[in-house]
Amino acid sequence: MTQRPDIARGGSSVLAICGGVGGAKLALGLYRVLEPGRLTVLVNTGDDFEHLGLHISPDIDTVLYTLGGLADPERGWGRRDETWACMEALKALDAESWFLLGDKDLAVHIERTRRLKAGETLSGIVGGFARHFGIAAEIVPMSDDPVRTLLDSDEGELTFQQYFVARQCQPKVHAISFAGAEAARAPQAILDGLGGAAYDAVVLCPSNPLLSIDPILRIETLRGALAATPSPVIAVSPLVGGQALKGPAAKLMKELGHAASVEGIADHYRGLIDGLVIDTLDRDHASGLRVASLPTQTVMRSLEDRERLARDCIAFSAELAERRLPSARRAGC
Amino acid sequence: MTQRPDIARGGSSVLAICGGVGGAKLALGLYRVLEPGRLTVLVNTGDDFEHLGLHISPDIDTVLYTLGGLADPERGWGRRDETWACMEALKALDAESWFLLGDKDLAVHIERTRRLKAGETLSGIVGGFARHFGIAAEIVPMSDDPVRTLLDSDEGELTFQQYFVARQCQPKVHAISFAGAEAARAPQAILDGLGGAAYDAVVLCPSNPLLSIDPILRIETLRGALAATPSPVIAVSPLVGGQALKGPAAKLMKELGHAASVEGIADHYRGLIDGLVIDTLDRDHASGLRVASLPTQTVMRSLEDRERLARDCIAFSAELAERRLPSARRAGC
Repeated sequence: MTQRPDIARGGSSVLAICGGVGGAKLALGLYRVLEPGRLTVLVNTGDDFEHLGLHISPDIDTVLYTLGGLADPERGWGRRDETWACMEALKALDAESWFLLGDKDLAVHIERTRRLKAGETLSGIVGGFARHFGIAAEIVPMSDDPVRTLLDSDEGELTFQQYFVARQCQPKVHAISFAGAEAARAPQAILDGLGGAAYDAVVLCPSNPLLSIDPILRIETLRGALAATPSPVIAVSPLVGGQALKGPAAKLMKELGHAASVEGIADHYRGLIDGLVIDTLDRDHASGLRVASLPTQTVMRSLEDRERLARDCIAFSAELAERRLPSARRAGC
Repeated sequence: MTQRPDIARGGSSVLAICGGVGGAKLALGLYRVLEPGRLTVLVNTGDDFEHLGLHISPDIDTVLYTLGGLADPERGWGRRDETWACMEALKALDAESWFLLGDKDLAVHIERTRRLKAGETLSGIVGGFARHFGIAAEIVPMSDDPVRTLLDSDEGELTFQQYFVARQCQPKVHAISFAGAEAARAPQAILDGLGGAAYDAVVLCPSNPLLSIDPILRIETLRGALAATPSPVIAVSPLVGGQALKGPAAKLMKELGHAASVEGIADHYRGLIDGLVIDTLDRDHASGLRVASLPTQTVMRSLEDRERLARDCIAFSAELAERRLPSARRAGC
């Protein structure tokens, strides 16, 4: 589609909703094309866990490192120029070593754990880290209350990390639940922003819908605010040609009875989104979707790819807003 | 003095009582000259503290690293080939950085803290670490109960680390107390060993008497067992020519009304020791001591120095045992 130069220059305010790696790529693209302070990233904490006595927030940290320019460009997780001296020394003590913790990464876990114990909120801590990393965007945990993603699998109940890291997504999953989600309070500023049309676009990033976005949507007030917001809400499909670029999205969607396709994604987000960004590879599926769609290049290999997709998302949202499609979304609830 | 070859070969069993660096040097000498399994090291935990949410046991770790061959040979504390990536990353978050934590060192603090929270005892954890480090000696914390050294100074009450690390021993000290010492339980195996004459020598290492040895002696059952043991008990003076080789021993002794001399050391340990090892520099003071003394080279620069002093301690203890001097000690109580 044709980019509108005023939007492409980043005058908009955007709320990005994401999990870890895949979603953080688009968050980085948005961060780079928007003016400083115009991006808010609402991040999944369903993968948070205690390990070696430390509170670890994998998705939050991926977003912090990615937007702070500290992410390892090759590995897809963790920090650049990382070292592993502590990990090696832990192994020498026969300590648990299945979850890799780099020396620099550890600093974030140690300081976050200390501050949480001292009574600070996760959101306050993350905001402080973002400032220390020089990030001119708001990075907001989906809740300061604990929510834990649990997978009912053919190997029994697994925590997210047991499933994702230790078992490498191999077990067949029957159901996913989010312990604590019902009681979890959403960030008030996000609820206010959604209610007050503070965002020119709300973007569900191409994170795993079932593992990374669903925990956020299971917080009832957030889901309600998303469904009701006057702002245009779009999603970017994490599936291309029926495949996930990375991770178990397609496998999980099939196991849980969804179509592993852009149609399945559109169905899953029905009632919440005004439009779906799909890959050009899936352009033939556009006519079968019951939502507006934008076929474009969604695979983000380069920094330019991230920025281009971010501009496409902003422009698509602006177009949807002009066409007043939000009413159609709400009608479809 | 003449070494008796049978003792010098290490047939004896020795209990060494020590704090950190200075004492650990002699513990290493003893470890190297004794047969495997014949050394027990009872270590001060009065300096233990919580930092960044981690339980840190400075003296225990110094002994572990020293006997395990992992100590940094130059710095006098911490691990060899250490790196500081986590510390640098903590500084970047404005986290507390006055207490230096190396990446490898951190592994020990993280795993100890985790196990303590899981309900394991400090002694069990330290024993496990010693085995993992391949140490063929028992390293025993003075108690599994918390004891904290506190200094009443002209800057108010300071914890050990505030005084020693943050304030570099500058404040003038009026009194030292050991919170928790009265309620702390001593290791039963040590009490049994002392009562049952299991040790051919008990050596108070040249650690700071007021800061590193006194916390141990303030545990009433330990002090009583030491005073009553049939085994010979000796101390090695940490003062040479009225000066401490390292640390605030001489300054503290003066501030607290002790003579900063071998006489002051002998007085301080009166009723507990059968003999005092002093430096050859102090040999003229020997006649003024109210306890048997052995002048020898107590300054330990090389590994050979450590081993020679260890052999001297073992031989001196054997000589005291033959002269049945323990009775004289008890009479002097």
